[in-house]
Amino acid sequence: MWRSLRPLGRSAASGGYRRYAWTDADADCRLWFRMQAEARRLDVETDRNGNQWAWLGDPTAGDAVVTGSHLDSVPDGGAFDGPLGVVSSFAALDELRARGVSFKRPLAIVNFGDEEGARFGLACVGSRLTAGRLTKEQAYELRDADGISLPQAMEAAGYDPDAIGPDPERLARIGAFVELHVEQGRALDLSGDAIGIASSIWPHGRWRYDFAGEANHAGTTRLVDRRDPMLTYAETVLAARREAELAGAVATFGKIAVEPNGVNAIPSLVRGWLDARAADQDALDAVVAGVETAARDYADRHGIDLTVVRESFTPVVDFSHALRDELSRILGDAAASATGTTGPSGKVPVLGTGAGHDAGILSESIPTAMLFVRNPTGVSHSPAEFAAEDDCLAGVRALADVLEELACR
Amino acid sequence: MWRSLRPLGRSAASGGYRRYAWTDADADCRLWFRMQAEARRLDVETDRNGNQWAWLGDPTAGDAVVTGSHLDSVPDGGAFDGPLGVVSSFAALDELRARGVSFKRPLAIVNFGDEEGARFGLACVGSRLTAGRLTKEQAYELRDADGISLPQAMEAAGYDPDAIGPDPERLARIGAFVELHVEQGRALDLSGDAIGIASSIWPHGRWRYDFAGEANHAGTTRLVDRRDPMLTYAETVLAARREAELAGAVATFGKIAVEPNGVNAIPSLVRGWLDARAADQDALDAVVAGVETAARDYADRHGIDLTVVRESFTPVVDFSHALRDELSRILGDAAASATGTTGPSGKVPVLGTGAGHDAGILSESIPTAMLFVRNPTGVSHSPAEFAAEDDCLAGVRALADVLEELACR
Repeated sequence: MWRSLRPLGRSAASGGYRRYAWTDADADCRLWFRMQAEARRLDVETDRNGNQWAWLGDPTAGDAVVTGSHLDSVPDGGAFDGPLGVVSSFAALDELRARGVSFKRPLAIVNFGDEEGARFGLACVGSRLTAGRLTKEQAYELRDADGISLPQAMEAAGYDPDAIGPDPERLARIGAFVELHVEQGRALDLSGDAIGIASSIWPHGRWRYDFAGEANHAGTTRLVDRRDPMLTYAETVLAARREAELAGAVATFGKIAVEPNGVNAIPSLVRGWLDARAADQDALDAVVAGVETAARDYADRHGIDLTVVRESFTPVVDFSHALRDELSRILGDAAASATGTTGPSGKVPVLGTGAGHDAGILSESIPTAMLFVRNPTGVSHSPAEFAAEDDCLAGVRALADVLEELACR
Repeated sequence: MWRSLRPLGRSAASGGYRRYAWTDADADCRLWFRMQAEARRLDVETDRNGNQWAWLGDPTAGDAVVTGSHLDSVPDGGAFDGPLGVVSSFAALDELRARGVSFKRPLAIVNFGDEEGARFGLACVGSRLTAGRLTKEQAYELRDADGISLPQAMEAAGYDPDAIGPDPERLARIGAFVELHVEQGRALDLSGDAIGIASSIWPHGRWRYDFAGEANHAGTTRLVDRRDPMLTYAETVLAARREAELAGAVATFGKIAVEPNGVNAIPSLVRGWLDARAADQDALDAVVAGVETAARDYADRHGIDLTVVRESFTPVVDFSHALRDELSRILGDAAASATGTTGPSGKVPVLGTGAGHDAGILSESIPTAMLFVRNPTGVSHSPAEFAAEDDCLAGVRALADVLEELACR
């Protein structure tokens, strides 16, 4: 199953994945999902927001158990972030069928659309729309780097952008959603555990900083006559690091767009994106305010016009305590009967994470939980992201244990 | 004449010009040049390096007087940098014909290819190749942002990349080259003169800084685990400004390329280009060494691998003193007889410039000179670049005076 997914949307130059929403690579991944589902005699449907669902049992019966993740990627992303959850879901279903269990509740495997937001700058678009956390009007405003709007991109990919919007009936049929994901950090590696359970997702957001100066010739414009926004950008990048250190948070300027971006031209515009996350809202507020205050101060001194726009924000997500405790019990019992998903600590560790997920978006609407699989490098959003085969198999067994307990008892 | 050139390669979004080498916009400009030349019954030829020549008289007779400039632009450049010299050349020829002069030496108007280097990162490619200051092998290594090589781009535009190389026979036929250009600074505006004569071009160059770190998730990677090259880039941008201030020089980071350039990804690579110029070689050396030393220090501290490549360098250019003095005498005499190209100072000012030009490249091979036309904003490489109509007409008269004196006596 891995082998058939591996080449889709992979860049020969970087070795990383470029599976962006509504591109050819995305269509390839969706076709792969459909083929995997049909090979397992599941009923595939695509909802109004472009999320794919593969059903075992009657979708309308209610109280369904759903698992899955996403197949799209960040630019030059790794093979595991997203796909590991989808592949493990199919594999867990295979495992349950091998165990000969009978299902008492409907089961679905889901592939959420546009989780990474690599193309339109907003993460979790598929689940946000479904949960009513992104309106149709807001979605219509989204544009990619080439100026193509989200509805144009959907239409070009053969989907109906007119249909998008909240889908409460669909969510009402779901009793529990469990997403398995590669860990994006080294906590499990440090504790020696193959599998972990998510406690919460840090509050996080994206802010766009537009530094507007004056384009001019880099060779002939005296330093005192310049309004060079690259200087202000550079000072702000360093301020973000300082503020994050002070607050025990993380803050990153990883994306930039410069106009005119010529070697011998002072830029007219430097646009940088701040990604900031912290364990709680107060710490995040401190970082975000600190960076903006510093940037405005620098901008004033250099004659730069600064505009700051919050492009997205997700408050702290506490996953369902009941479901989380149930997962702990299920995996603890399984460990006791030696299926071996836990490490030296003897119980499954519970960890917070700085990464956003569709499970976080849905957690306000339905009970959700997440399982993490150890990532020995701690690296993600890069071709170096990794999970060992044994750990992936442990993840499949853990997910199968959870699904069996939830859907078959 | 201006009106027909104005729409070519202009971006509706920015109002600036995007006339890059071997693109459709470039082909439009070349067609415009041919039509202007043919309307004046000049013989048009394109040399082995893609430079266009419009001849009045026998090109092989020798001791030719050549004027002209270039039609390509920086990204979102202005209407004057380059085109003013070409348009003024045609207009000066019209003026000379209206004066009823007879030509004793061959005259040519030239449009040099790829002066700005906007696409392949190296300025003055057309004149460098012709003067033997860029080898065919070096030119074949040039690639644009999409990975298209210079020979591929030439071939796609219908030119033979196999033919490129030095052209000493062509240069040997030229007795003098005079380039008129919009001033890229405010010296003439401050002195109140419409026209100036170039003394020298500052030594200048471009250095590519590759800061290589480790791509990772911006939300889940602890600050202490990061190798974020954007931080080192930011520190280096600020160091360049400091070093330029110390040396009385200019240094600019105006172009950047980031991989993977995702909002939630710590970059694996930040590539920045340093443009540095100074009045003399010692000052330039001090700036360039100072920036690199600082950058290496920052890189070591952050675990970043730094590679610095000098992509181009042009030593100080002193224009031909004899030709410069002759221009001063011609324009001084013209001022005395009240054609009115000089301002309150009563004589034509002689100024240095930080900008590179084809005239600078050719000055080692043949006697060259430059005329500057006042730019009241001082701005160039931007849509705000400007010259008043009266000043442009004064420039045409001055160029006509010079050409008449050189070619008709």
